[in-house]
Amino acid sequence: MSKPVSRREFLNLIAATSGTAAVLGITSALGMIPSSASASVPDLLRLSNQSRKVVILGGGISGLTVAYELGKAGYDCTILEASHRCGGRIFTVRAGTLIDEIGNPQYCDFDDEPHMYFNAGAARIPSTHTNVLHYCKELGVDLELFINENKMAWIQDDNIMGGKPIRNGEFTTNVRGFMAELMAKAMTDVELDQPFTDDEAGLVLNMIRAFGDLGPDNRFTGSSRAGYASGNYVTHTVQKDIIDVRNLLRAQAARQVLSDNEGETGPMLMQPTGGMDRIPAGFVRQLEDKIKYRARVTSLNLRDDGVTVEYDQDGQRLSIDADYCFNCIPSHFMNGITNNLPADYTQAMKYIRRGVAYKAAFQAKERFWEKQGIYGGISWTNQPIRQIWYPPHGIHKAKGVVLAAYDYGNGMPFTRMTQGERIEAHLAQGEKVHADYRQQCEKGITIAWHRMNNMLGCSARWNVQTPEEQAIFDKLQASVNGRHWFIGDQISKHTAWMESAIQSAHVALADLDQRVRAEAANA
Amino acid sequence: MSKPVSRREFLNLIAATSGTAAVLGITSALGMIPSSASASVPDLLRLSNQSRKVVILGGGISGLTVAYELGKAGYDCTILEASHRCGGRIFTVRAGTLIDEIGNPQYCDFDDEPHMYFNAGAARIPSTHTNVLHYCKELGVDLELFINENKMAWIQDDNIMGGKPIRNGEFTTNVRGFMAELMAKAMTDVELDQPFTDDEAGLVLNMIRAFGDLGPDNRFTGSSRAGYASGNYVTHTVQKDIIDVRNLLRAQAARQVLSDNEGETGPMLMQPTGGMDRIPAGFVRQLEDKIKYRARVTSLNLRDDGVTVEYDQDGQRLSIDADYCFNCIPSHFMNGITNNLPADYTQAMKYIRRGVAYKAAFQAKERFWEKQGIYGGISWTNQPIRQIWYPPHGIHKAKGVVLAAYDYGNGMPFTRMTQGERIEAHLAQGEKVHADYRQQCEKGITIAWHRMNNMLGCSARWNVQTPEEQAIFDKLQASVNGRHWFIGDQISKHTAWMESAIQSAHVALADLDQRVRAEAANA
Repeated sequence: MSKPVSRREFLNLIAATSGTAAVLGITSALGMIPSSASASVPDLLRLSNQSRKVVILGGGISGLTVAYELGKAGYDCTILEASHRCGGRIFTVRAGTLIDEIGNPQYCDFDDEPHMYFNAGAARIPSTHTNVLHYCKELGVDLELFINENKMAWIQDDNIMGGKPIRNGEFTTNVRGFMAELMAKAMTDVELDQPFTDDEAGLVLNMIRAFGDLGPDNRFTGSSRAGYASGNYVTHTVQKDIIDVRNLLRAQAARQVLSDNEGETGPMLMQPTGGMDRIPAGFVRQLEDKIKYRARVTSLNLRDDGVTVEYDQDGQRLSIDADYCFNCIPSHFMNGITNNLPADYTQAMKYIRRGVAYKAAFQAKERFWEKQGIYGGISWTNQPIRQIWYPPHGIHKAKGVVLAAYDYGNGMPFTRMTQGERIEAHLAQGEKVHADYRQQCEKGITIAWHRMNNMLGCSARWNVQTPEEQAIFDKLQASVNGRHWFIGDQISKHTAWMESAIQSAHVALADLDQRVRAEAANA
Repeated sequence: MSKPVSRREFLNLIAATSGTAAVLGITSALGMIPSSASASVPDLLRLSNQSRKVVILGGGISGLTVAYELGKAGYDCTILEASHRCGGRIFTVRAGTLIDEIGNPQYCDFDDEPHMYFNAGAARIPSTHTNVLHYCKELGVDLELFINENKMAWIQDDNIMGGKPIRNGEFTTNVRGFMAELMAKAMTDVELDQPFTDDEAGLVLNMIRAFGDLGPDNRFTGSSRAGYASGNYVTHTVQKDIIDVRNLLRAQAARQVLSDNEGETGPMLMQPTGGMDRIPAGFVRQLEDKIKYRARVTSLNLRDDGVTVEYDQDGQRLSIDADYCFNCIPSHFMNGITNNLPADYTQAMKYIRRGVAYKAAFQAKERFWEKQGIYGGISWTNQPIRQIWYPPHGIHKAKGVVLAAYDYGNGMPFTRMTQGERIEAHLAQGEKVHADYRQQCEKGITIAWHRMNNMLGCSARWNVQTPEEQAIFDKLQASVNGRHWFIGDQISKHTAWMESAIQSAHVALADLDQRVRAEAANA
């Protein structure tokens, strides 16, 4: 039997659960800053007759941004990319794609059709990411809408409803009904800190009722928002029973689906038509002859007047001299690269922790989710796969690709499995959400970013909150001798986003430009 | 100064404002039933050698559905459509389209490009509308996502913020913060009807905090969800000030943006790529030679063994005999058509009230909303235009078409204006939301459905709630003598939606089929 909580007990509880605020803080950092700023592309001084050579370490989106912008301004750029492709963690998997996970390489054998792809890394562009959008426009990358939340998608949690999936809309409607009842009760409390006039209280009450779809007595007695048990547009409809919030509280997804515009779910989301790799491809079209693939950097020698970079390419040790160096190599690889960066700089670099992430996808023989009225969006589960994503594109086509697992820090259970075991686990877990999942899914692919060749990690993970952290950030964001800039989402306050990587490139470019302009003024 | 509300006063207030529940009920009826039912297409007995003639009055989507399904089953169908096009209130306006508003005919002169269109009638397909989706799939109508709510869109209300527009996300974040504080207060009240265990109370509290982004002391002190005052991904960010809920309460849009999945905003929405008229066009492709355009019905004569319909077409009085008649003529036109329908039937027909609706659109010289980070969705205003819609398609193209007004029962102020006055009013009101609106907008078109030729009204408006209303509904849904069926969204419990019109057609088809099967069994 439930035991009432006294006021004092409750206040103790508040103190005891304050730890969750920290958890929220971290999750929030996975989201995005709803910036009102427009694109930050620096207005670079165009070089006239003199030539400046630039070497760019890594063909991730920050490196591509630097090469593209400096190329337009007349600089002579070379990108050294360790792998066989640019884009880094912008990676679209389709028929024939190699997933170069060390110890578990796979070739994707999805059907070869334009809509049959999987964005294994970056997958969403929020409408607040003005710089990503700026380059999409400039490079002719077509965009289409993407959605996270879908009231028709499922919430499946072994701790609620006996493990039976429940529609997101039914879940949220019942929780909101409960919340609205709570609020209406609180409004009757004359101890409100901000007492309202009659008129204002009436407005609040209307708002609360609308929020929770309460009845005139301020009780939640069910709502059509949860869907109907039976009936349609031309017959009598029967309302679904209400669900006691007690039965929903324990769902892990509760926070996710109620937090509204926290994180990625706030602004509109978009994706490039045909795959996220259309973005690096747009840059590469402009840079084709400036990129050296399979070029692994082995040493970095900074001098006052320039930089020399040695690299291995196809069995040869080669070298390149340049005036400037922009470096988006994942920080944890710099240990293995001979360099003469200052000691405090390499020390700062070591502060950056590298995150893990795991994704998987299936080809679906039929778009089984559409038969359940699900068009795009995410189903949530408390199982290790966490999420199932349905494609927002290719509506009503014969087949589609579903994201089958997305784990970004849950102990990474799948990483310890063979490929066969991973697939079996995803099928078994997916079956709890969709009964026919196993029959519908085939050709599974998996990707553990912390085991990917030339990557060995997902995005950097660090928060810049303390003065010490700010000092580290400032150190790494600044150039070394005006010759070397560290770039990438790793040098941002909001790692893991393309927008951050691009903004870090813009900061470095603006710094270079300022120096070049100063030289020009002094010349 | 605000005056605290006592508990008794508050309870009185609840009683006094109970009228709002009725208002909510009506609004909810404008939404949709989140049905879990799959498509209701009846499995019609295919006619073998005998021929049956069917005359269908009106080429709206219910009439098209009947002709399409009966055609597949071997019936000989003829559609009599009064206007020059099928689709009725499914109407897409693009370069060259005639808007046949009586007294205000217009030809649209938008740029002639695939994305430059305006859905002047039906504009959204919820993912719960399984029958619409069924036909889109069967008829090869490509779909793409559509969105209503966009946290980046504006809320502009002369009663709040001094009339200055505020981002939807900033508005909702502040209101949710206030709401969450209210809830947290209520949780400290030991008089809760459903006392919780410590564990449960902790879960509720976490949920409330996540909902409102409260601090550890359960106070709302602002949230990054509202956007930042300054800063970006690589610099220090400054949080926006919180807004006292008092300043937001009076916004008309408050209910709209907080009611979550009420009405159309719940399930995923879609639109056909290229315009909503792709749906009637899909039917028409299958029915081309069966449709008579500009054919206005003048009389309907029902007999025990069939039906004779007279109609005028291009100056000629013509006549057609058929075994069955399906009728989707707007009910308020039946007065002017000579008929021998039973007296109680015509009496029932008169109960259906006809709604009004007004929409307008502009061609935008530039996609000015995208420069503000708005990609699709709706801005809300308390001015008579009510809404501004931004197209979810054609992202980053040079131009786009915005919905400039959408009034479905606000006194219809625009109807009393000349075309020039309408346009000027829309520009003046739009300027309050977008300062450069007047400079950006051109080639305005307007459409008052209650003045459109062959329409003189928007969707039927009636609620089937009382036993009397149910009796009227049953009467109109039933056939007359097994020879005549009244169809369309007007014969549904959820008017104004394509889904309702199709379901009404399916009900009528199933009734016919049952009769035909019975005859076949007795033959």
